Amino acid sequence: FMSQAKVAIIMGSKSDLEIVKQAQVVLEEFGIETEMRILSAHRCPEEVAEFSKGAIDRGVSAIIAAAGGAAHLPGVVAAFTRLPVIGIPIKSAHSIDGLDSMLSIAQMPSGVPVATVAVDGAKNAGILAAQMIGIANSDVAQALVDFKANQNKKVLSDDASIQEKAYS
Amino acid sequence: FMSQAKVAIIMGSKSDLEIVKQAQVVLEEFGIETEMRILSAHRCPEEVAEFSKGAIDRGVSAIIAAAGGAAHLPGVVAAFTRLPVIGIPIKSAHSIDGLDSMLSIAQMPSGVPVATVAVDGAKNAGILAAQMIGIANSDVAQALVDFKANQNKKVLSDDASIQEKAYS
Amino acid sequence: FMSQAKVAIIMGSKSDLEIVKQAQVVLEEFGIETEMRILSAHRCPEEVAEFSKGAIDRGVSAIIAAAGGAAHLPGVVAAFTRLPVIGIPIKSAHSIDGLDSMLSIAQMPSGVPVATVAVDGAKNAGILAAQMIGIANSDVAQALVDFKANQNKKVLSDDASIQEKAYS
Amino acid sequence: FMSQAKVAIIMGSKSDLEIVKQAQVVLEEFGIETEMRILSAHRCPEEVAEFSKGAIDRGVSAIIAAAGGAAHLPGVVAAFTRLPVIGIPIKSAHSIDGLDSMLSIAQMPSGVPVATVAVDGAKNAGILAAQMIGIANSDVAQALVDFKANQNKKVLSDDASIQEKAYS
Amino acid sequence: FMSQAKVAIIMGSKSDLEIVKQAQVVLEEFGIETEMRILSAHRCPEEVAEFSKGAIDRGVSAIIAAAGGAAHLPGVVAAFTRLPVIGIPIKSAHSIDGLDSMLSIAQMPSGVPVATVAVDGAKNAGILAAQMIGIANSDVAQALVDFKANQNKKVLSDDASIQEKAYS
Amino acid sequence: FMSQAKVAIIMGSKSDLEIVKQAQVVLEEFGIETEMRILSAHRCPEEVAEFSKGAIDRGVSAIIAAAGGAAHLPGVVAAFTRLPVIGIPIKSAHSIDGLDSMLSIAQMPSGVPVATVAVDGAKNAGILAAQMIGIANSDVAQALVDFKANQNKKVLSDDASIQEKAYS
Amino acid sequence: FMSQAKVAIIMGSKSDLEIVKQAQVVLEEFGIETEMRILSAHRCPEEVAEFSKGAIDRGVSAIIAAAGGAAHLPGVVAAFTRLPVIGIPIKSAHSIDGLDSMLSIAQMPSGVPVATVAVDGAKNAGILAAQMIGIANSDVAQALVDFKANQNKKVLSDDASIQEKAYS
Amino acid sequence: FMSQAKVAIIMGSKSDLEIVKQAQVVLEEFGIETEMRILSAHRCPEEVAEFSKGAIDRGVSAIIAAAGGAAHLPGVVAAFTRLPVIGIPIKSAHSIDGLDSMLSIAQMPSGVPVATVAVDGAKNAGILAAQMIGIANSDVAQALVDFKANQNKKVLSDDASIQEKAYS
Repeated sequence: FMSQAKVAIIMGSKSDLEIVKQAQVVLEEFGIETEMRILSAHRCPEEVAEFSKGAIDRGVSAIIAAAGGAAHLPGVVAAFTRLPVIGIPIKSAHSIDGLDSMLSIAQMPSGVPVATVAVDGAKNAGILAAQMIGIANSDVAQALVDFKANQNKKVLSDDASIQEKAYS
Repeated sequence: FMSQAKVAIIMGSKSDLEIVKQAQVVLEEFGIETEMRILSAHRCPEEVAEFSKGAIDRGVSAIIAAAGGAAHLPGVVAAFTRLPVIGIPIKSAHSIDGLDSMLSIAQMPSGVPVATVAVDGAKNAGILAAQMIGIANSDVAQALVDFKANQNKKVLSDDASIQEKAYS
Repeated sequence: FMSQAKVAIIMGSKSDLEIVKQAQVVLEEFGIETEMRILSAHRCPEEVAEFSKGAIDRGVSAIIAAAGGAAHLPGVVAAFTRLPVIGIPIKSAHSIDGLDSMLSIAQMPSGVPVATVAVDGAKNAGILAAQMIGIANSDVAQALVDFKANQNKKVLSDDASIQEKAYS
Repeated sequence: FMSQAKVAIIMGSKSDLEIVKQAQVVLEEFGIETEMRILSAHRCPEEVAEFSKGAIDRGVSAIIAAAGGAAHLPGVVAAFTRLPVIGIPIKSAHSIDGLDSMLSIAQMPSGVPVATVAVDGAKNAGILAAQMIGIANSDVAQALVDFKANQNKKVLSDDASIQEKAYS
Repeated sequence: FMSQAKVAIIMGSKSDLEIVKQAQVVLEEFGIETEMRILSAHRCPEEVAEFSKGAIDRGVSAIIAAAGGAAHLPGVVAAFTRLPVIGIPIKSAHSIDGLDSMLSIAQMPSGVPVATVAVDGAKNAGILAAQMIGIANSDVAQALVDFKANQNKKVLSDDASIQEKAYS
Repeated sequence: FMSQAKVAIIMGSKSDLEIVKQAQVVLEEFGIETEMRILSAHRCPEEVAEFSKGAIDRGVSAIIAAAGGAAHLPGVVAAFTRLPVIGIPIKSAHSIDGLDSMLSIAQMPSGVPVATVAVDGAKNAGILAAQMIGIANSDVAQALVDFKANQNKKVLSDDASIQEKAYS
Repeated sequence: FMSQAKVAIIMGSKSDLEIVKQAQVVLEEFGIETEMRILSAHRCPEEVAEFSKGAIDRGVSAIIAAAGGAAHLPGVVAAFTRLPVIGIPIKSAHSIDGLDSMLSIAQMPSGVPVATVAVDGAKNAGILAAQMIGIANSDVAQALVDFKANQNKKVLSDDASIQEKAYS
Repeated sequence: FMSQAKVAIIMGSKSDLEIVKQAQVVLEEFGIETEMRILSAHRCPEEVAEFSKGAIDRGVSAIIAAAGGAAHLPGVVAAFTRLPVIGIPIKSAHSIDGLDSMLSIAQMPSGVPVATVAVDGAKNAGILAAQMIGIANSDVAQALVDFKANQNKKVLSDDASIQEKAYS
């Protein structure tokens, strides 16, 4: 099914794509449409502003933004919109073990929050966006309940297999 | 006005109250009802589970959870609900400058996100909850737009006063 | 011999198994029975609660819990039992060099301790569980004394071989 | 009542006493006798060795050791005994926010664990010692169950008072 | 004298003013005009863009930008101008000891540098701006040479007084 | 074209060359001449002093200095010249994830700034040097404007290709 | 007595004096003469070079150097002399909790060591200098043995007083 | 030649040998005899105490001790001797990027210093030991002067080769 909800996904560099597309994959599982963009807060600030300001008119409900190092993209997007913005800290090659990315995204000043997930946590960013949409979208809400039930089952199945091994 | 939306706010200890109530204050400005609870993930886990599982039935749209040190409360709440959970890392007396609180909340495993805000960022937690609700609630959406306009004006007013001083 | 003591070992994810089984290996050397489970604090919280609350009735004396990132499992288990809980911080792929796992486990709030060992320190977790049991179990106490003597000998043998090399 | 169990508490410096005595206070609540010593791993190593090696003969079941900075005391004590050793990292004046104390205690090498609690977590060290003794001592086990029930009640009472305030 | 050079100084919040004005003070000593602005990257992004894009036309040679926490202002300004941008990491109340501010400013992605100075290093930011201007401005270059000679003398005077004390 | 400006590039060790030469490459793109030196602050301090003091006479406008670990070279060079010094923190094999290099360069005392760029940020060091020269050199200023336009285009081209893929 | 040994003590700023003089105090207890200087590696590099190169001719056996932030002084001194250099990391007002000072001193490149002591560890710097001199100076060696015996007694006296209190 | 000085080198584990032997190599270049031992502070504390207390009688002038993680060996050795002790922090597999090893060695309490070198800095540990011996041993002092001259030449040779390449 299609929930008629849409999430925008934006990343600062093509090199983040492999990790970030996990957000897209999980959102599609929830029946949520995505738009995916590569726009750098520092190399194309005008386009980022335009992208952010136009998101509501494009039918976007939430924005996922990924960046590494001095990771400004999520905060810059959040400056231009009243939509919730989810930030993914990327552990890029020259980052300081992802800690710089994390703090650059999470430590936003009063008035302009960014919903920060774990380092490289693109899948969780997608789930979080779905949870936001699920507040008022019962299809997505139900998909989330199913998702939680499924991942519960997967762990229990791992648990069962390890116990079988122990007693066989 | 009242938006008929409700946000649950939970903290692990009474000592977090002074900071956490800033979330309540800002949510009330957006016309969003709150319920405020003190429930520790470690000292009353059954009550936290019950609180989390019953949130949807109580009409809650999003949950804000605050904790310091090994700050498990937001993640534990998120385990029990499909609602979005916002985590506030508290810089408590014996925390390691708030870094432990931050990492304990943000670095959630795949499948169960927590939307982490800045250390002691209770006001931003409230705004983020409003942004989530604003996805499908036009009153709250409008209140957020007004809020952004207002805080823009406040900075510009500070800017004007500093420039006047410079030229007088 | 079998000491009739039992230690429960629990991990949040199958991917922790390779490290965590070192705890099992060393406990078996001390003649201590183990039960090994894969249960995530966030993906199957009910089962973790049930596991923790039932541990005493299953004859468990101490619980070892391993997790990485926002490593809540040890603290969540500790919330449900008066048994001592030993936490192993796992340095998983997207963790911040294991520091997040360490702080998420060690920095527990007042009232609910977790006995934290080194990052990836599963063997030490097993030894620590044996030390706890050895307080009142003379077989295990003796096994620990022998273990300490043996590891002393191994170092002295390394020391001897390096000295021989130097003078030959 | 008196459980006939005894816990040794050792600290590296008189300046740690104010924090460390919280361990003694909570152990007395559990009916566990304590012996309290000031002995530095670096300034009186012979006495620390003697203290550690003699602990079992003095009827000690577990040892709590507190130190700050390059906090070696818990590890040095653990080297000399098969008893479980609990380490309290002290956030002293010139420590690096307690992080040095934490890592110096928790990151013990394979073979010689120290059960590390939170920075300045003396109360939790006492509770953990009681949990270890409670494995085979039903009086202490019962005292721990009561303690957990009491601290649960205290949080619920805080929770009740905050809710009353909200609706009055 | 007046060098006819101008440096723009911008900060994200009025609360940064006390520290940031040290940059203004030192620039005035070098005969360099300043313009001082309070404009937040997140609360007034349009005004920051306008400020940054118009700097060259206002006769600005270099821009100093100060911010704390997720300190995006210097990077955001740098995105809009080919002028050198100097970033001052502010150690604000809820920052993680200034480390977050430092990394958020210094770890800029390839293509858009920010010249980062020390935490709260406003005076050095002013000196650095003067050094940049001094490349092609001989008055400022000479003022810098004099400044260096003076601060050398001040240290030598401290040194002399401590040696006198030692021998008197 | 050649701008008649010159930038000196200095590194503490031959092993830094692969990273540091990126600064040279980008400066050549801007038509700026470079001189490249290997001189260690600790192994040839006299030569570093001579190099630094003679830079102005050799026609140098700015100095780029790269070092890792206890990275003193940029600060030592800055002590001897009124020219702006740009520091590149190198993440060398035994550095602590580049954090030591970063802090050793950025945290300079009042009076002697170093313009710090990102860990391994040699390309940005080159751009920053060009920006400084561009203050009073219209050829370099224009080259910087073109560079910014080009890198904007490259990101937009990545963005276009990802959008095409999405709709094809 | 006077051992005829001399230790030079140098600090980067007058503000370090209160901490650094503890080195002088303890060296005088060991009968070791000191010379105390305030010379900044960055504000008077020529004088630091001269000081360092002349130390042997002034009869100096070891040099203690204290600095905070980007603490280059110890390394810069070490570059100019074959004498052992002891570095004291100062936790100054704008340092990042002393960690920057520590890493800037300890992480010296291969070939030029600095003997680093604890943050603000001036007393230990003095003791370490005495230990170096004591290698070949039997008076100082004996003074160190006495010092160790005395500090052992002081701890045992603290220990005795705490035990008396417990049993009275 | 042989200087008749001797340095003891001790490490906590055979796995540190590859790094630690660099200290031996450089000491032999200075004509200083070494004794190399593998003795763990935690697995053979009695032997470490004996080794440390007997060092002076074996003709040892300084002790180098290497360890990783909760690196107690250098401090434990220092507790038993008035000889200077040099600590090498080892970045072992499960260490937190060497930071734990560094802080566990450097942050020694007042009264018992350890001369800490860089992470994995075994060569520097050897040089530092030679510098200590060189205080009163003119052969070693001369060897150090030659060593410094040689490493100066090596850098200048690297510098020359890079400059030739640039102009050919």
